[in-house]
Amino acid sequence: MVNIKETKKIIGLMSGTSCDSIDAALCEVQPDLTVKLIQGINHPYPEHIRAKIFQAFRNELSIKELCQLNFAIGHCFADACKVLIGEFEKPDLIASHGQTVYHYPFDEKIDNIPLKSTLQIGESSVISALTDCNVISNFREKDIAVGGQGAPLVCFADEKWFRCKYKNQNGDYKNFAIQNIGGISNVTVVSNDYDTFGFDTGCGNIMIDYCVQKFFNQKYDKDGEIANEGKVCENWLECLLQDEYYFLEPPKTTGREYFSVKYIENILKTAPSEPKDIIATLTALTAKTIAQAYERFIYPSVHIDTVVIGGGGAYNKTLMKFLRGYLPQRTELKTHEDFGISNNYKEAMAFALLGYCNYYGIPSNVPSCTGASKRVVLGKIS
Amino acid sequence: MVNIKETKKIIGLMSGTSCDSIDAALCEVQPDLTVKLIQGINHPYPEHIRAKIFQAFRNELSIKELCQLNFAIGHCFADACKVLIGEFEKPDLIASHGQTVYHYPFDEKIDNIPLKSTLQIGESSVISALTDCNVISNFREKDIAVGGQGAPLVCFADEKWFRCKYKNQNGDYKNFAIQNIGGISNVTVVSNDYDTFGFDTGCGNIMIDYCVQKFFNQKYDKDGEIANEGKVCENWLECLLQDEYYFLEPPKTTGREYFSVKYIENILKTAPSEPKDIIATLTALTAKTIAQAYERFIYPSVHIDTVVIGGGGAYNKTLMKFLRGYLPQRTELKTHEDFGISNNYKEAMAFALLGYCNYYGIPSNVPSCTGASKRVVLGKIS
Repeated sequence: MVNIKETKKIIGLMSGTSCDSIDAALCEVQPDLTVKLIQGINHPYPEHIRAKIFQAFRNELSIKELCQLNFAIGHCFADACKVLIGEFEKPDLIASHGQTVYHYPFDEKIDNIPLKSTLQIGESSVISALTDCNVISNFREKDIAVGGQGAPLVCFADEKWFRCKYKNQNGDYKNFAIQNIGGISNVTVVSNDYDTFGFDTGCGNIMIDYCVQKFFNQKYDKDGEIANEGKVCENWLECLLQDEYYFLEPPKTTGREYFSVKYIENILKTAPSEPKDIIATLTALTAKTIAQAYERFIYPSVHIDTVVIGGGGAYNKTLMKFLRGYLPQRTELKTHEDFGISNNYKEAMAFALLGYCNYYGIPSNVPSCTGASKRVVLGKIS
Repeated sequence: MVNIKETKKIIGLMSGTSCDSIDAALCEVQPDLTVKLIQGINHPYPEHIRAKIFQAFRNELSIKELCQLNFAIGHCFADACKVLIGEFEKPDLIASHGQTVYHYPFDEKIDNIPLKSTLQIGESSVISALTDCNVISNFREKDIAVGGQGAPLVCFADEKWFRCKYKNQNGDYKNFAIQNIGGISNVTVVSNDYDTFGFDTGCGNIMIDYCVQKFFNQKYDKDGEIANEGKVCENWLECLLQDEYYFLEPPKTTGREYFSVKYIENILKTAPSEPKDIIATLTALTAKTIAQAYERFIYPSVHIDTVVIGGGGAYNKTLMKFLRGYLPQRTELKTHEDFGISNNYKEAMAFALLGYCNYYGIPSNVPSCTGASKRVVLGKIS
């Protein structure tokens, strides 16, 4: 197809499960697959669209409403692009993850036809028509079609951005644990002589956020200030660490279905009485489960030089302090920003990279992470 | 992009609203956009998939079931391709229309976001992965994104295959009415000095089929034999011709919602007593409404040299005889087969052509037919 690779300006578009807004990142993607963020914006969804997306999550939409929402979200994504295009210039390509409304990664079959499936909406034809750009979208389907789970896809970017890129004091390339701390925490291990792999280490901010809301009526623990004022209750922490999830061998994933309101209310029955101590202990729990997961499932096969923290947890100073304490002394603790990667726009940047790969026919799934039977080119171009 | 156009082997895939089976047509598409059918097959859906599609039509599927059906139909389409690939060779491309489960072509808006939308399922990534071919799909979305109705798309093929292709005895290029007679009848007018346009002329086989089923317990009037044995009741025919739809100015479309069971049962109240006469008269009605539509809405602006009949109606000899009688003497009456176009696989062949156009970046919607604001490249490549 196209042979000589050029640097391309690409807008990466991402909208996560919180549905607050669309992340749009105008990037420069280079032939060596490094991605430079030019400008990122957060474009809010209109309230009625956001309400419809939550209806989709609850399976309350008819096929008609789902189809209309697909085209409507396409309009919203196009609007986000137009803001960036107005301020800067037209990109060479747009790469849109879309809005996930359904993802079923399990290996079940009916009459020999697999049920594994996924759906990201935000009609790419609409984005393309309204911006007059080529749009690449629907990245997850092809990985599922070759037997993968269609996720995680960002580990391809982790591999390209960290593998064999930085040397340690011995002159060897560093091995990285790329640790995302969102609602759930997940790690990707990028090493020089081992296939990239990853798994969910357990809860991230999900229980902290719930309790900060419940006891302090705040959305989250800004900078970890509440946790910093509390005291870790070692007995309760020890008790929480006994949850069977933390002992399961990878590959493993978890979610809000597991660390549910019911789960949290249940553990609160044995919590310390001082709310600040609860927040401090739950913050320690997130840090400790990460450190323990490394000891159990990573260090036996891979030495880690550097842990790179991403997601909302990177801004929680108390969480970072705990993590520093629990991780081995020799391990560096860094954030994405330390490597020139925007923490806020990392996912949108990763999809800009996947868009670039589609354009040049470069396979961009990581079978050791998704379980796919082979490497394939992801995405459809509109 | 790609400059020198080559002849390509393309499998066109189509599944209509009857959902009996998938039409798969291995074609050779040439740089002048002519399409030669190499082999067509009819690949039946598994019964449980067909049942699910009908559930989708009735809006009885959850989002989860719809997503799974998307991937499952992708498997069925891939199976159809594999039969052709096994007998012949791997094509250069596959072009899949998919299975329509929703189409809403109306210009309504909520908060300035249009509700116009469409959904064809049959995951192209699955077809691509299982056949190891590039697949082009989702042709209708882009036309809708530029303000069109996303339909009809086949008129592009009609234009390419008939416009300025055949000369009449005066040495001028012939003007064509491409008349499809399915459940509903629709015409596309392809002339030399007038934009291609089309509309639904009215009922096709829908009322004939219903009454043949009701009175003769047969699925359809094979070769028009029943109609041939009956007598046209001119009074009843005159009465049926008064329906307001036939007088509406184009553009206009109709469907099963209008010519419903209720509509048919209602007209049967004034029908002749002999069932064969009913079938004869309804057959005459289809022919007469076509001829009248030409007189009212086509001849005033475009002279027609040749009418080309397609769809199931082309096999109804009595219908063809009536049509011959009602059309002006000077007008030629032909079938698609007379022009080397398979009547059974015409639509699948047309989508092979649209796939070729996507590959070479050729716009393939006809704005004068769909109402789109401009010509655009249709389809997404996987």
